Amino acid sequence: MRVLGIDCGSEFTGYGVVDQDADSTLICVTHGAVALNRNHPLALRLAAMFNQLNSILEHHRPDAVAIEDVFYAVNAKSALKLGQVRGVALLAAALHGCPIAEYAPLSIKSAVVGYGRAEKQQVQQMVARLLALKALPQSFDAADALAIAICHLHTNATERRIPATAGRR
Amino acid sequence: MRVLGIDCGSEFTGYGVVDQDADSTLICVTHGAVALNRNHPLALRLAAMFNQLNSILEHHRPDAVAIEDVFYAVNAKSALKLGQVRGVALLAAALHGCPIAEYAPLSIKSAVVGYGRAEKQQVQQMVARLLALKALPQSFDAADALAIAICHLHTNATERRIPATAGRR
Repeated sequence: MRVLGIDCGSEFTGYGVVDQDADSTLICVTHGAVALNRNHPLALRLAAMFNQLNSILEHHRPDAVAIEDVFYAVNAKSALKLGQVRGVALLAAALHGCPIAEYAPLSIKSAVVGYGRAEKQQVQQMVARLLALKALPQSFDAADALAIAICHLHTNATERRIPATAGRR
Repeated sequence: MRVLGIDCGSEFTGYGVVDQDADSTLICVTHGAVALNRNHPLALRLAAMFNQLNSILEHHRPDAVAIEDVFYAVNAKSALKLGQVRGVALLAAALHGCPIAEYAPLSIKSAVVGYGRAEKQQVQQMVARLLALKALPQSFDAADALAIAICHLHTNATERRIPATAGRR
């Protein structure tokens, strides 16, 4: 199964594509961050991000897209900015017919670090370890996106195991 | 000049296309509201809205898109919801190569009613009068979208007059 994780931000949007093979090994296919040029008008920044996400979706053809669920934000202004980026990311996934899963930040950190209030550095290090990366992901945004993809793969695997376990009783 | 006004909302997004002819008469070309089906997942709602805005942009080919600038919101949660819709609307306009103008709610109401704190009903009535509509626009969202388009046409006309007036001195 192949999952694209997206970590939306008003300046950088991280992305990470992770494969899980038959023996549950996790493999990082690609990761990075789309930078939104602050000097460009907002609509052109959103269009540039949309085009880059489309390229990633077309090139890597994920089976699912996982994205952070946002319950809170520092304030309404930053929530609006984040919302604009998030809307475009959700749209790109929907137009490609990808199932979309949303995870709370606590669930993502718990799935990767085992602790819901982990620091960004811990997420970065655990993601590198789980994916056997030779170096840490360049940015926190890319690391967070990979963490979201891993969270989805873990959740999916658990959901597959539950009916099997229940059947044994 | 033809302007598409868009009034973003998390449940209904109003749209209104207004032409201004050579003698400054305002003509309503079309108006309405895109309803976002609450029972559908968010990403599918955004995709449906994107497709409808694309149809309007392709069919009516406006010279510009005008949209409300949002400075505040009731809270971060509603700002995030509104942002998601607004991001998709801005994206649709940008992908069609339309210049985008943003106006504060106060400016829009001032341009149409002459009073920045006007009620929705007053905007609805003044829009119908300015566009010589036979009936009030069906929804406040459509009326607000037409008001945004009128605001842009007024602002544009004023900007064209300023250099002419300055030249006479």
